[in-house]
Amino acid sequence: MKKILLLSTGGTIASVASNAGLVPKETGEELIKMLGKLPYEIQVRDILQLDSSNIQPEEWKLIAQNIYKYRNDYDGIVVSHGTDTMAYTASMLSFMLKNINIPVVLTGSQVPINVVLSDAHDNLRLAFAAAASCPPDIYLAFHNKVMLGCRSVKVRTTNFDAFESVNVPPVATVSSDGLVFNKDDDFQKKHDGNPVLNTKIDAHVSLVKLFPGFDPNLLFAMVDSGCRGIVIEAYGLGGMNFIRRNMVAAIGKLIRQGIPVVASSQCLYERSDLTKYEVGREALLEGAISACDMTSESAITKLMWALGQGMNVNEIAKFFGTNVTGEVSLK
Amino acid sequence: MKKILLLSTGGTIASVASNAGLVPKETGEELIKMLGKLPYEIQVRDILQLDSSNIQPEEWKLIAQNIYKYRNDYDGIVVSHGTDTMAYTASMLSFMLKNINIPVVLTGSQVPINVVLSDAHDNLRLAFAAAASCPPDIYLAFHNKVMLGCRSVKVRTTNFDAFESVNVPPVATVSSDGLVFNKDDDFQKKHDGNPVLNTKIDAHVSLVKLFPGFDPNLLFAMVDSGCRGIVIEAYGLGGMNFIRRNMVAAIGKLIRQGIPVVASSQCLYERSDLTKYEVGREALLEGAISACDMTSESAITKLMWALGQGMNVNEIAKFFGTNVTGEVSLK
Repeated sequence: MKKILLLSTGGTIASVASNAGLVPKETGEELIKMLGKLPYEIQVRDILQLDSSNIQPEEWKLIAQNIYKYRNDYDGIVVSHGTDTMAYTASMLSFMLKNINIPVVLTGSQVPINVVLSDAHDNLRLAFAAAASCPPDIYLAFHNKVMLGCRSVKVRTTNFDAFESVNVPPVATVSSDGLVFNKDDDFQKKHDGNPVLNTKIDAHVSLVKLFPGFDPNLLFAMVDSGCRGIVIEAYGLGGMNFIRRNMVAAIGKLIRQGIPVVASSQCLYERSDLTKYEVGREALLEGAISACDMTSESAITKLMWALGQGMNVNEIAKFFGTNVTGEVSLK
Repeated sequence: MKKILLLSTGGTIASVASNAGLVPKETGEELIKMLGKLPYEIQVRDILQLDSSNIQPEEWKLIAQNIYKYRNDYDGIVVSHGTDTMAYTASMLSFMLKNINIPVVLTGSQVPINVVLSDAHDNLRLAFAAAASCPPDIYLAFHNKVMLGCRSVKVRTTNFDAFESVNVPPVATVSSDGLVFNKDDDFQKKHDGNPVLNTKIDAHVSLVKLFPGFDPNLLFAMVDSGCRGIVIEAYGLGGMNFIRRNMVAAIGKLIRQGIPVVASSQCLYERSDLTKYEVGREALLEGAISACDMTSESAITKLMWALGQGMNVNEIAKFFGTNVTGEVSLK
């Protein structure tokens, strides 16, 4: 019988009603009790009890350390987690735990497990099944889909089908035959060595969505206030304005100051490609780093991790041109 | 025969290849020539020739002024426009041209019209048909869908099906019977008077996407640098962290300084609802303004327009609790 560890961190799945709204209270042990019998040997550790809106870099480190510590004692690990920041946590764990040697599966729910029509039971059973049968990697399991953690995005606030696997198909989906794996595994992480725990990150970054009228001086104000790297969700394929409020010139100036600027797309689906239009080429000439088809969640966590390693702008540009853990499809 | 005005502004639809990448060059007259014969009396005015990444508040005013000027001379107006900022322009025109008395339809394409397998021909024909048959309002027509302008979002960078009508169904779709209107018109603008042109806006705003680790001090840095209002794409239903880097406290402080802070959701679909979780209620108590189910494009343009009218924080909160032009579904 497979031996699985449940690391519980709080979230809606563990929440109960209170005068202040839903607040996470249930322990991992209580989650398992509500779930009924499963064909796995399950052990539980409560490491946090937070609404995931409150999950931050300090919690990422704690979760990563726990996964690393128990990686040889279990066949797989399930992390119960709030949905709001789950895609960010899954992306960051993918960088902090390169070459992890067991499947690690994040899950949660849109409705607390103590509610009769909750989605928690289905999602937890899916996560345990994935932790027992997927190849080693960091996953997010939700609503009958197992997705690569660094490709998942929360797209719906209330529907049970809350997450999507962006720009790559899900790793596996549930059918009456059980977990059906997608045979095209081009996008799956290629392990190239032993598991490494590296939690050094620099969270002094910013994620800005471009809109018509945006004043580029606000970027400099943030940098003067301690921001050391910026992801800009630019338009369409990654284009930015270069007349009047000149974003492209601002980026050039920031890059020359040693501040990495990553251009992603504010369109949820498909890749950014700075080479196609004049508005993208200009930005590229100034040194903007393309996020290609990465999610914003992966781009911002990859930037934090790169800065934490002490990389300079050139090294970060090279790092973003590398597929570290399945987070990007390079041309 | 219906009389339709084409206002051309540039965009991919009018672009031609150059050494610097695709650059908008074709005039409206050339677009019409490429299109072939249509059952409308079409007149053309070239008002801009820009990649829409370069469209900014100054261009919004020019487009709005032209629509207002010609509103009584035509049965409808088509605006050809780049896709990158088309949803922003459509949203802003909805506020700048309240009670417009004719249908105004924005369209464009993912591939230039001079390419044999372009989507430009279909989109232009759809836009003309919509301008000839829809009730007065601001629309965005793309890939067989006519959407309310203030509800549309660009979600795909390369696929022809680039736009979605978010949180409301499209106004009409194309079938072999022609334009089929959605009978549920609850979301359509209720006109309550004569057309009004009001282009006073304040673009000194910012659109920030929350992520774990975001330093709230960056918000103050932007305000010190001239930013007068902020839209925060918060998590899920609109939750924000209140431990350590305390976003909720920062918002309270900003509100007390007279800076309106609007909380929208970074999830593309469904509404924000600050009342459900502790992390949302705390923000609400501090005075955060909920964007409900508005798109970020509508939230940021509505904020600019409200600031341009000289509204204070309380008036802006009330204004965001009002459905001006179909942009929001209130409970």
